Amino acid sequence: MHHHFTPDRYYNALGPYAPALTVESGDTITTDTVDARGFDRDRKQIATRGNPMTGPFAIEGAEPGDALAVRIIQIEPSRTYGFTTTSVAPHCVDPGYVPSLPANDLVDWEIDPVAKTVRHAGPRPGGMPELVLPLDPMLGCFGVAPARQQALSTATSGPYGGNMDYRACRAGAVLLFPVSEPGGLFFLGDAHAVQGDGEISGNGVEISTRTTVELHLLKGYHLEWPRLIDQDGIATIGNARPLDQATQHATTEMLRWLIQDAGLDATGASLWLQQCVRYDIGNIFDPAYTMACRLPRAYWPPALRESEVIRRFA
Amino acid sequence: MHHHFTPDRYYNALGPYAPALTVESGDTITTDTVDARGFDRDRKQIATRGNPMTGPFAIEGAEPGDALAVRIIQIEPSRTYGFTTTSVAPHCVDPGYVPSLPANDLVDWEIDPVAKTVRHAGPRPGGMPELVLPLDPMLGCFGVAPARQQALSTATSGPYGGNMDYRACRAGAVLLFPVSEPGGLFFLGDAHAVQGDGEISGNGVEISTRTTVELHLLKGYHLEWPRLIDQDGIATIGNARPLDQATQHATTEMLRWLIQDAGLDATGASLWLQQCVRYDIGNIFDPAYTMACRLPRAYWPPALRESEVIRRFA
Amino acid sequence: MHHHFTPDRYYNALGPYAPALTVESGDTITTDTVDARGFDRDRKQIATRGNPMTGPFAIEGAEPGDALAVRIIQIEPSRTYGFTTTSVAPHCVDPGYVPSLPANDLVDWEIDPVAKTVRHAGPRPGGMPELVLPLDPMLGCFGVAPARQQALSTATSGPYGGNMDYRACRAGAVLLFPVSEPGGLFFLGDAHAVQGDGEISGNGVEISTRTTVELHLLKGYHLEWPRLIDQDGIATIGNARPLDQATQHATTEMLRWLIQDAGLDATGASLWLQQCVRYDIGNIFDPAYTMACRLPRAYWPPALRESEVIRRFA
Amino acid sequence: MHHHFTPDRYYNALGPYAPALTVESGDTITTDTVDARGFDRDRKQIATRGNPMTGPFAIEGAEPGDALAVRIIQIEPSRTYGFTTTSVAPHCVDPGYVPSLPANDLVDWEIDPVAKTVRHAGPRPGGMPELVLPLDPMLGCFGVAPARQQALSTATSGPYGGNMDYRACRAGAVLLFPVSEPGGLFFLGDAHAVQGDGEISGNGVEISTRTTVELHLLKGYHLEWPRLIDQDGIATIGNARPLDQATQHATTEMLRWLIQDAGLDATGASLWLQQCVRYDIGNIFDPAYTMACRLPRAYWPPALRESEVIRRFA
Repeated sequence: MHHHFTPDRYYNALGPYAPALTVESGDTITTDTVDARGFDRDRKQIATRGNPMTGPFAIEGAEPGDALAVRIIQIEPSRTYGFTTTSVAPHCVDPGYVPSLPANDLVDWEIDPVAKTVRHAGPRPGGMPELVLPLDPMLGCFGVAPARQQALSTATSGPYGGNMDYRACRAGAVLLFPVSEPGGLFFLGDAHAVQGDGEISGNGVEISTRTTVELHLLKGYHLEWPRLIDQDGIATIGNARPLDQATQHATTEMLRWLIQDAGLDATGASLWLQQCVRYDIGNIFDPAYTMACRLPRAYWPPALRESEVIRRFA
Repeated sequence: MHHHFTPDRYYNALGPYAPALTVESGDTITTDTVDARGFDRDRKQIATRGNPMTGPFAIEGAEPGDALAVRIIQIEPSRTYGFTTTSVAPHCVDPGYVPSLPANDLVDWEIDPVAKTVRHAGPRPGGMPELVLPLDPMLGCFGVAPARQQALSTATSGPYGGNMDYRACRAGAVLLFPVSEPGGLFFLGDAHAVQGDGEISGNGVEISTRTTVELHLLKGYHLEWPRLIDQDGIATIGNARPLDQATQHATTEMLRWLIQDAGLDATGASLWLQQCVRYDIGNIFDPAYTMACRLPRAYWPPALRESEVIRRFA
Repeated sequence: MHHHFTPDRYYNALGPYAPALTVESGDTITTDTVDARGFDRDRKQIATRGNPMTGPFAIEGAEPGDALAVRIIQIEPSRTYGFTTTSVAPHCVDPGYVPSLPANDLVDWEIDPVAKTVRHAGPRPGGMPELVLPLDPMLGCFGVAPARQQALSTATSGPYGGNMDYRACRAGAVLLFPVSEPGGLFFLGDAHAVQGDGEISGNGVEISTRTTVELHLLKGYHLEWPRLIDQDGIATIGNARPLDQATQHATTEMLRWLIQDAGLDATGASLWLQQCVRYDIGNIFDPAYTMACRLPRAYWPPALRESEVIRRFA
Repeated sequence: MHHHFTPDRYYNALGPYAPALTVESGDTITTDTVDARGFDRDRKQIATRGNPMTGPFAIEGAEPGDALAVRIIQIEPSRTYGFTTTSVAPHCVDPGYVPSLPANDLVDWEIDPVAKTVRHAGPRPGGMPELVLPLDPMLGCFGVAPARQQALSTATSGPYGGNMDYRACRAGAVLLFPVSEPGGLFFLGDAHAVQGDGEISGNGVEISTRTTVELHLLKGYHLEWPRLIDQDGIATIGNARPLDQATQHATTEMLRWLIQDAGLDATGASLWLQQCVRYDIGNIFDPAYTMACRLPRAYWPPALRESEVIRRFA
């Protein structure tokens, strides 16, 4: 079933809130998201600043111990205006270099949905040439209600997803999250028209969108950190500080996945991964950093290709 | 001029040692490297374990304050045998997962120089299918003598290069290093037939090679961390622990490079980099981790394309 | 006024929950806390495992922007039984040492309230002599409702306090917290009969208690991280991972305090602190580590001694 | 035997240099150290800036696998002038606070060897009262030649000691280092008249000294990180970044020591340490941070008191 949902309230935390809509496994939802400061398609502020979330969406029958699969069908910018701030963040450069960073002002960007571009629209400092990037919309913050009935700010992320700010979370990707609350309770928002690795200024080109997702329930499918399937391969996502710990989480989850679904034992998983592994930085700006551990399709063991999760979602 | 150099001693540290050979800027050197445990093309141990280095090569006229550019012309495996060890390293997984890691034994790999492949050659644990990877030779440890007359173990890395274990250090890449000693004193070794991101088992497929490099002196060219130019774009390389600090070094060096050579001021450099930046993990195994901050060619400001360094080496 | 409060429910998160009791600034509350696993004075489990909290207590008139001062009057063990677990935690030792750690079982300890001792009560491994420590009760987890209406697990800590596991939080100490919710909403629990620095096994000797606190409202007193006043001096408390970041938070907050209350400018605060500062580790076990930055009484600037906060609470 | 040694050259790295003097185990050496910038008792620069070292001193018969014990007999300031720099270091505060730090100038301090005080001697910013601290001389940088014939800058530290900047390295303390080079090769310098925890401005009150040490050889005594014995108890010292890793090294070394010399097995060592442990920060300024893991005398197991190392040196 395809639902069209118009939000009338937004959340600045992912938590055990009452579902805005309950759907069946396999259903599709098209809805609207506001930008990171709560501004909508008309550049009107309708939600509180700080990654206000659309949702939550409950999925019938989801219980703790299950997984929720979210296929991102489409992320369509709902306006041509986007913004970032000027400066690379102080904690992303050497401490002694911080006084050399510029002032941190709002910067305008212009999305051209026909040309599929994102153009820096000023102000433009002396000497800076035109900067036009390919449009590549993604969701910065999305996920499910966290464990232990916590309500966690949309500034941060964890095993439940959240503000991962990972460029690969674009249309075509499937994300798997561990369910902690009945219904799972899926939230989404904080879309970017484009984003560099690491979100080093603290923002991608921040936009409002119309977004379509498809939600699937995986009964009893165990995972400890978000997993991703896309055209490049599979990935596991660790969210923590420092980046070393995020990397440990992601790597460990990938070993677990290979043992769970690729017919490998502990020795085989170590051997397989060591020379095939790739890493992507999601963000190095938020309270929890995000690292993805990847296994490209070219290196998938045959048993992984035959696993149920891959056959359903890859 | 093209030199053919046959090493008769090896170093397990990068330091202010007497040059094995002195060359002119622009000269090419073809030489041999042994593997990480000191074994040569005949699988005979001829050097002390721990990334023994060939060199050092001095470049005529190089002085502190200059830069040394090293173009990697070719890295040719000099035997068909390679090795790794079984297990992902304890510090690359969650601390609580360490007891689940397998025993850490030597593992054989076979290089096929005609088919251009690297094949896992055993022992093969139950359930593990055949694993054949594309041959992609790289230098794990290379660089110049460090500052302050230090002699630093080939286990680690720093502003002078060293054991960076970064996959992009393959034929075709140009690396720039800051000169600290007269002559620069270039060392190389620790080649891998292929390596995953992060070198998470502590090794790529370790091989001996015949390697050819071209050395260029850049008088008065200032840089604080290694820089790289290849077909994908430019990169700056930070080496430190934790990974957060390596990332800060790399990002700061990229901002400096954009201000130095791309006609941007501090504001322009921040604006330019924030949505264009990419990161690559070199290694997360060695005492210093390695992170590369990249600006892909598609996003090069016009002035950067016209800079002397890019025109000479890109 | 002195309130006696008997809890009838417990919380496993600090959040914007309805007050269990509302008091006036200056009032005293005597109440009961259960142990980290929810067991009470009769060793009966009456609350859910994971640092269940007594409270929350609202203070009349407290608003965001104010501070709440909590004087710990008394922490009295309400039973003679305490527990820890055997092993130092995997993330507190070198990753390669993890397989050498022992099994992690429950360990009994016996509190003697007359002799004021805590005795290891077994099981006792071969060769281990008797171990008797001085009784030194403290609160492991306490604080106020966090910002942004979050509900944060009692496993972790932040600017609002929480699971800091800092030995100095004993009777006689005064803690200051920034108020984020109306009433402040003070929670407490997770008491330890004694604890080593760092809580490296993940527990102090875990006990239930009868605890008495005095609550004071400081209208408009600005602070960003918890502050502490005790007989040794003043401290600021940073909670984060890695420990480096917790230390940065604590040090920064101390500089702010010296500028705010000790008549020093930025230069004076830096000069004063650099040779006088002391650091205490709270915990290096929890998701956020805790570091305290201290200025001993012997080194207090005269203006600090005259500040309102010190005159009221020191 | 008591040697009086007048240095005629200084080293800015700890490395496998020719001994300046060779002594017998048990001998005492009285010698001079210059300050961190190479200035001597007459405020004349006689050595290169950056913790120039006196030594190295070889001990007859010391071989890799042995330990060197250094008892600090006396550290006597050889002039009344000391210096620091103004500002807390950028990497010791929150990155966003860096622009609020003051300019970083040289600051004079005055040592009064009779009153045993160290007085801030200016310049004094507005509002700053007089600051007089107790004289508490310590060695900032000292240790033995590192492993693998490295020569490591006196800016940093490691298993061999080096620039640990730990306040407990005062007269009365005994330090144990692992020997890596024949003779051990002991270096010392970088003394401070007083220092705060962490050396957060990058300096204690930097002085030249006349220092007396007693050197002892411990044949075959195995240790992996420096150990310390003083009137407070025993400590193990980890040097690394981040602070988390330094702490892991120190904690692991303490577990090893308890198993080696206190009659405890792995279970007993974990149980013993968990509630008795204390931590001291050495420095959080240098390239490698320093953390000490302590077991106070009151908590020493009886077998430890009877161990050879404790009986000889405690």
